[in-house]
Amino acid sequence: MNIPQSSFPRVVIIGGGFAGLAAAKGLEKSELQVVLIDKHNYHTFQPLLYQVATGGLEPDSIAFPLRKLFNDLDNFYFRLAEVVKINPDEKVIKTTIGDVDYDELIIATGSTTNFFGNSQIQKHVMEMKSIPQSLNIRSLILENFEEALLTSSIQERNALMNFVIVGGGPTGVELAGALAEMKKGILPKDYPDLDIRQMQINIIQSSDCLLKGMSAEASEKAEDFLISLGVNIWKNLRVLEYDGKIVKTNGTDHFRAETVIWAAGVQGELIEGLDTNCIVERGSRIKVNEYNQVLNYENIYAIGDVAFLASDKNPNGLPMMAQPALQQGKMVAKNILAKLSNKPQKPFVYKDKGSMATIGRNKAVVDLPHWKFQGVFAWFVWMFVHLLSLVGFRNKIIVFFNWLYNYIRFDRENRLIIRPFKRVLKK
Amino acid sequence: MNIPQSSFPRVVIIGGGFAGLAAAKGLEKSELQVVLIDKHNYHTFQPLLYQVATGGLEPDSIAFPLRKLFNDLDNFYFRLAEVVKINPDEKVIKTTIGDVDYDELIIATGSTTNFFGNSQIQKHVMEMKSIPQSLNIRSLILENFEEALLTSSIQERNALMNFVIVGGGPTGVELAGALAEMKKGILPKDYPDLDIRQMQINIIQSSDCLLKGMSAEASEKAEDFLISLGVNIWKNLRVLEYDGKIVKTNGTDHFRAETVIWAAGVQGELIEGLDTNCIVERGSRIKVNEYNQVLNYENIYAIGDVAFLASDKNPNGLPMMAQPALQQGKMVAKNILAKLSNKPQKPFVYKDKGSMATIGRNKAVVDLPHWKFQGVFAWFVWMFVHLLSLVGFRNKIIVFFNWLYNYIRFDRENRLIIRPFKRVLKK
Repeated sequence: MNIPQSSFPRVVIIGGGFAGLAAAKGLEKSELQVVLIDKHNYHTFQPLLYQVATGGLEPDSIAFPLRKLFNDLDNFYFRLAEVVKINPDEKVIKTTIGDVDYDELIIATGSTTNFFGNSQIQKHVMEMKSIPQSLNIRSLILENFEEALLTSSIQERNALMNFVIVGGGPTGVELAGALAEMKKGILPKDYPDLDIRQMQINIIQSSDCLLKGMSAEASEKAEDFLISLGVNIWKNLRVLEYDGKIVKTNGTDHFRAETVIWAAGVQGELIEGLDTNCIVERGSRIKVNEYNQVLNYENIYAIGDVAFLASDKNPNGLPMMAQPALQQGKMVAKNILAKLSNKPQKPFVYKDKGSMATIGRNKAVVDLPHWKFQGVFAWFVWMFVHLLSLVGFRNKIIVFFNWLYNYIRFDRENRLIIRPFKRVLKK
Repeated sequence: MNIPQSSFPRVVIIGGGFAGLAAAKGLEKSELQVVLIDKHNYHTFQPLLYQVATGGLEPDSIAFPLRKLFNDLDNFYFRLAEVVKINPDEKVIKTTIGDVDYDELIIATGSTTNFFGNSQIQKHVMEMKSIPQSLNIRSLILENFEEALLTSSIQERNALMNFVIVGGGPTGVELAGALAEMKKGILPKDYPDLDIRQMQINIIQSSDCLLKGMSAEASEKAEDFLISLGVNIWKNLRVLEYDGKIVKTNGTDHFRAETVIWAAGVQGELIEGLDTNCIVERGSRIKVNEYNQVLNYENIYAIGDVAFLASDKNPNGLPMMAQPALQQGKMVAKNILAKLSNKPQKPFVYKDKGSMATIGRNKAVVDLPHWKFQGVFAWFVWMFVHLLSLVGFRNKIIVFFNWLYNYIRFDRENRLIIRPFKRVLKK
């Protein structure tokens, strides 16, 4: 991998998401050698992927070049690679571009879509965990409307305008809201020769409420908002099959839809090589102790979505969201520095700062620890918090301007098929 | 193609570039039915493609959704398709999504890269005529640097950092300048473990000057600017072969380079079906008369890059640039309206408003009909003119902000490999 040996210990971080970046930032002022490995050369701000998918934002505005973050650091190395295997005995990791040894290893690989073992579904649905995947969804939506213009079969046309979102968590809810706004403001103008009223947006949720991790108020209000936007909500319903044409469920309702977006669950992105005892099967996460150390490995840490840190308050591990990742990343850096200077490590305690979701224009729900509110103010708070958390000043301004423009003009101008998914025109 | 028959004549426009859009705009207020066909669902602002390729701009900011341009028009239809053939006898065109008949046809297909018949070169070089192609170049540049980090062969590393641009027209000059600025301001910071001084940027020009269409002052000054930025200029040299590794020329100089960008020429994007007498072989353009009518076809017009309109002043046809395209598009709309109301058509006269090219920060050359100037002021004029010509208010603001940011920060933050070209990490 061509990384020079340094006289200081080497910390290897796998993954440049929220957790990995927070850890790297925490090590910035140390003399340690830091090696960050990611399969993309940019950090992705995942909470806004749904806006890229629905033409509200350009992909470049929610991505940030990883190398730039560490331009001024001397002993920092970034490598574009995928990690294949960890060899804890020899303290080496194997990657697609060669091996690298470590003194301390931080696994911050994040999460990937969980299909719960259903490969037929996996083959036919759309995922939305990365920028390329979001751009695929954007293209597919637009290509479907282009195609709907061409068919004389009503059944086929309706299937092209039928959107099924599996999963009623924040991703599903936010995506459904954004699609509903496209249906209202943009598609009728762009496709005057289609009857856009026939477009259906469905959320299928296996349990009896949306936004399960949030308060009952938030969940109910989100549902109200979605219904007011014309979204069909199907609760206590499970998707069993999707062959690219028909969504079969465990109920009596089936859906003929050309676009199914799977937001029903995530699982840890595991790497081969760790003792299987460390792995929690449900959710494929890595068990860590209160210092975020992987069980039985003193110098391997796991943080963020991939880490499973059970506590009395969170017996199923911490929520797979930005906040725990950021806090763990920060703490793990401190603990590694403490350990290397023979000071005691501090146990990680998760501070729940609350959670929020936006449904559309002036419509959001916010749960703070001591205050829950919904509506216009919540929407402004949501925007403010997301703008602040975006990496990069340029990105903040571009996203802010896009939001302002979209708000004033009721528009989403990034409805561009730059990365064709179906290639309608080649039919 | 599912376009309703209207009681008004149907004008079909092939291509949503400068020419096609100008023609469509000119027909906006008429009662004619207008059908615009393009293989992309967006208009591309080609003059700024090189900035997308070099990470200065996001692709979405130089693209504009074609449907949006005609949202408020009743009898306007857009179709995402590729045209396969024209059948002038039956007044029908065949496309990838079905046939459509026309009363008046406007061919505004623009131009494509001209490899002068060399298929080996075509296979190995990069083109820069569309947004996907520009994103491919962006990825390739960055992937090459990632790869250069990994090799221990000096020869290989130098080849990965050696850029050959074939063609010293505006595209080649602007791209070389942008690469030189990346070399100066960004790459040494992003790749501190590479010796970026070894990066070479070469322009190979077959004639004895750059910017052949412009004044001698502009050409000389552009050369000075490029030399001051460290670009190697090779004049009176022709590229004969490129096998993906070595550029062979008709001189004694050969180049070992992993990236060769072909900006040596364009040719009309022809469609099958027209009488071969209408085609000028050199440059593959369609001969038109002073009304932009294709020879022998009264109701087929060709405008923009694909049209060959020879005059005393321009015996080799008009320059293949935005200005003639815009002017022809405007005029052709007027002439079709005149013809359909039995009024005489007006001959097209090209008004040369001048031309310009930018080399880098504070460095541009401008030729106006009665005034030629270079340097800082020229650079501001170049930016102003390009901002004004960009389609869409949102695009103007986003591009302006990016330029401002890049200027103040000496930066180009869109150095993202979102669309991997080589997939270094999968090696």
